[in-house]
Amino acid sequence: MHSFQELIEQFGQRFEHRQFPEQPSRLYDAASHILEIGGKRIRPVLSLMGNELFDTLHDDAFHVGAAVELFHNFTLIHDDIMDKAPIRRGKPTVHMIYGDSAAILAGDVMLINVYEKLNKIRAHYKHKIIAGFNKAAIEVCEGQQLDMDYETMDPEQVRYDDYVRMIGLKTSVLLAASLQLGAVIGGAGEGNQEHIYNFGKNIGIAFQIQDDYLDAFGDPEKFGKQQGGDILVNKKTFLLLKALELCNPAQHNELKTLLASSPDDKVDRVLEIFKSCKADVWAEKEKERFQEKAFESLESIAVLSSRKKPLMELANYLLNRQQ
Amino acid sequence: MHSFQELIEQFGQRFEHRQFPEQPSRLYDAASHILEIGGKRIRPVLSLMGNELFDTLHDDAFHVGAAVELFHNFTLIHDDIMDKAPIRRGKPTVHMIYGDSAAILAGDVMLINVYEKLNKIRAHYKHKIIAGFNKAAIEVCEGQQLDMDYETMDPEQVRYDDYVRMIGLKTSVLLAASLQLGAVIGGAGEGNQEHIYNFGKNIGIAFQIQDDYLDAFGDPEKFGKQQGGDILVNKKTFLLLKALELCNPAQHNELKTLLASSPDDKVDRVLEIFKSCKADVWAEKEKERFQEKAFESLESIAVLSSRKKPLMELANYLLNRQQ
Repeated sequence: MHSFQELIEQFGQRFEHRQFPEQPSRLYDAASHILEIGGKRIRPVLSLMGNELFDTLHDDAFHVGAAVELFHNFTLIHDDIMDKAPIRRGKPTVHMIYGDSAAILAGDVMLINVYEKLNKIRAHYKHKIIAGFNKAAIEVCEGQQLDMDYETMDPEQVRYDDYVRMIGLKTSVLLAASLQLGAVIGGAGEGNQEHIYNFGKNIGIAFQIQDDYLDAFGDPEKFGKQQGGDILVNKKTFLLLKALELCNPAQHNELKTLLASSPDDKVDRVLEIFKSCKADVWAEKEKERFQEKAFESLESIAVLSSRKKPLMELANYLLNRQQ
Repeated sequence: MHSFQELIEQFGQRFEHRQFPEQPSRLYDAASHILEIGGKRIRPVLSLMGNELFDTLHDDAFHVGAAVELFHNFTLIHDDIMDKAPIRRGKPTVHMIYGDSAAILAGDVMLINVYEKLNKIRAHYKHKIIAGFNKAAIEVCEGQQLDMDYETMDPEQVRYDDYVRMIGLKTSVLLAASLQLGAVIGGAGEGNQEHIYNFGKNIGIAFQIQDDYLDAFGDPEKFGKQQGGDILVNKKTFLLLKALELCNPAQHNELKTLLASSPDDKVDRVLEIFKSCKADVWAEKEKERFQEKAFESLESIAVLSSRKKPLMELANYLLNRQQ
């Protein structure tokens, strides 16, 4: 059994070198750029942990880990084009440096390379792993489309449950699948696979609620982002959708007016409404609710509880950050 | 053994229905659009022929056929975005109808579905098929990048051999791999796989030379495109690159002047130069050269020559069109 930190290091030793050929340089430099600007490599570590929860580490978990990390970075390149995002991890995005066309193509070639990694695993469970991976990958695309659909809708037209489902698809299913595919490699049965998948999925949603909360109420010094960045761009967040539900008619009107305008004190005034209708308190409870669901699933996994320690540690690391 | 026409029908019976779910509709309608506007389904038929050259048709050849057809359509969606192409097969392109973001995402989800198809085949040769497919898929991306790189270069900086290599990657390796993967399913040995791959690759290059030739010298009524369309947009073609090599200094100067300007009689004057430096004669010979290489490879395949009839028919259909 290895700790979270040890697994990050082990994965890094195999992954932190150029993953692509030199030529054509524009294509492969674009693909390499996103991998070189960092990232926490959470998803591959989840695959290693999923494996190690049930059995000693197998090479295949490193292949699956590389696949999910490449897939995650592929989505970042393409999402940044769609969102016209100029910055990622403090550096210019791939399409800003190499142009949209090379960025589209770099994402494409990265996605094909995902399956080069998956093709390395043992034949024994290859069908199951590729099927599980594809299910998550398709859901991530569906989540991204729903996110874009919701963006153009009035926030009141977006039902809270639909929003939770979208966030689940866009951000949580890949975390869940990373764990589950690791568990398959470790020889877990169907029931245990389902529990570890649900653990990952609910941790992911709790993490997203926390992310929305920190964007609004976090200390910008610690959080490293502008406070209220989501509010400034009218982003649909857990907080906004819930505030529209919770607030009284006067607050509701003010919130709608603020959404349709951009006064200098927009962030402060929206935060004031969030607080007076207790959307902040609700968000903390909602995060806890998903966190508890996650830990119940973890409890249900039929292995010695001492083996679950690294997963507990990782969950606490992800969900107790102030920054 | 089935004819080319029979195989198109057999593949169509399995493929010509909606390949995607209903929701999210924007994503899957975009993906379905490109499949619904037609296409000759040449690549899947090549997989079926590759299989049938060596053994009776197996379901797996239909799965591989669906995979290569989905992959081909994925490249069309993304290439059309990169080229800002408004029209494909006489219909608006996916990104013109659904926007760039949905078109990027529709391509992505189509590429993932390629591997859903490949995951259906027997474990026995799954590793080999996915490896062979990935090699071709990566080469197609590399070819597209090289094509974009060459687009920004002066035509004289592009070496003829590099251009042939680029065309091979961009348009021929997928034809070659479609045949080869079918042959794997049919149980062909390594040597025969190589021969059928080379047959497909050289047919593809001959086809591209013919395409360039018809764009310049074809009857626009029969060819269905504007005559000299490539000349009008200064597209690098076999003809242009070779003409620059073959022509005398005076013709060379005139060609360079024409490339840098757009007089009303540009097409006629460029065609005149092509003819006086005999680039047209050269192109017909060059096409024949690749065609002969292809037929030599077909000859070398160690099966009864009567089994090769459908492949001969298809090659003649592709390479003797006037339109």
